[in-house]
Amino acid sequence: MSDNQQNCKTIPTITAFEHSPDRGRGLARDMPVRWAFEEVGQAYDVHLVSFRAMKQTAHLALQPFGQIPTYQHEELTLCESGAIVLHIAQQHSGLLPPDTNARARAIMWMFSAVSTMEPVIVQREVAILAESDRNWHQQRLPLVEERIDSRLAQLSNRLGKADWLDGDFSAGDLLMIQVLRRLKSSSLLDNYPNLAAYVARGEDRPAFKRAFDAQLTVFNNLSAEL
Amino acid sequence: MSDNQQNCKTIPTITAFEHSPDRGRGLARDMPVRWAFEEVGQAYDVHLVSFRAMKQTAHLALQPFGQIPTYQHEELTLCESGAIVLHIAQQHSGLLPPDTNARARAIMWMFSAVSTMEPVIVQREVAILAESDRNWHQQRLPLVEERIDSRLAQLSNRLGKADWLDGDFSAGDLLMIQVLRRLKSSSLLDNYPNLAAYVARGEDRPAFKRAFDAQLTVFNNLSAEL
Repeated sequence: MSDNQQNCKTIPTITAFEHSPDRGRGLARDMPVRWAFEEVGQAYDVHLVSFRAMKQTAHLALQPFGQIPTYQHEELTLCESGAIVLHIAQQHSGLLPPDTNARARAIMWMFSAVSTMEPVIVQREVAILAESDRNWHQQRLPLVEERIDSRLAQLSNRLGKADWLDGDFSAGDLLMIQVLRRLKSSSLLDNYPNLAAYVARGEDRPAFKRAFDAQLTVFNNLSAEL
Repeated sequence: MSDNQQNCKTIPTITAFEHSPDRGRGLARDMPVRWAFEEVGQAYDVHLVSFRAMKQTAHLALQPFGQIPTYQHEELTLCESGAIVLHIAQQHSGLLPPDTNARARAIMWMFSAVSTMEPVIVQREVAILAESDRNWHQQRLPLVEERIDSRLAQLSNRLGKADWLDGDFSAGDLLMIQVLRRLKSSSLLDNYPNLAAYVARGEDRPAFKRAFDAQLTVFNNLSAEL
């Protein structure tokens, strides 16, 4: 913990799955928030919630859609991982460039990640989790994957040979890499070596590793108890 | 035009569909950007692009996913309607509250609109536009609509009897109402009178009406030419 943090009176608390459905692969939405905290060197507490508790009144007061993560610090309660990462990035240095225009572009990539890339990627998961028992699932899956591939091709063209989407690593890269990580259990990134390398570059950051280990510890501790 | 605008040397330019597929119903993503400009009293220029031009190199340099809108002002180019609305809201007063915590919550609702509500709503449009010729379409559509209904129920619970999601009208309401407007051609809002009234309240704002009329004029002028 840095001197800066020791001088702070309180630290933020986030919520995360008590038992993450991704089995500790760092795909739940507490992961980008943990990663952002680690990038800026802000300590945080974690309150674990069960699936049952997530749908009850106390949690719905924090998160109207019954999801994780939430963020609580002093008088402020937030949800939406994109908004929480943006808040952290605005409160600390390290995740948004100081130049006003570059800052607006980094925030643009945050929106691209959660509203242009993620929805098509999540549709594949919805199909597999919620529709694989339907007799049309195998016919439909290629349509879903074509939509993902089309977006990946466009993102790959834009990234080109660059390390990050726009200058130095930013909160835009953090969210985009986190979204692309959802595809690691598929072969969809295989056609785009520059995107696969981009993801690997993100995962190689010490802050990513600390965040990943922290969420994996939660999963492993739970598994040891069961 | 206000005195403030007359003193500005340049005004931003956005892109919009030359021929909007929504036939002027104000559902294309230039609409929230126009609405935001109108709320803050910022004049803007519009450059219309054809479907063909949107997929060509010049436009892809502005918008890597081949979509509208883009935003250009002096040295800054942005895309993603959520990011553009946030940029406008940060440059002017009127769309984000001055209090820091309330501001973070308004931005949270922007993310909720584009990354929690919009994706499930757009899936219905994708199903209708791209999958209605499949023999399983009629079996699948109810699943898609159940997912929308579930989110609407949660949003309706949170909104309750309030006029807006958190205090005064904000950029969060602007994006959320714009997203919910996509459901007006369905009956999905019928079960949630408070959400239907919320949408109507947004559409009743003078700034909304000016923005709506501006995009409708583009469509009507094109239709007159054809």
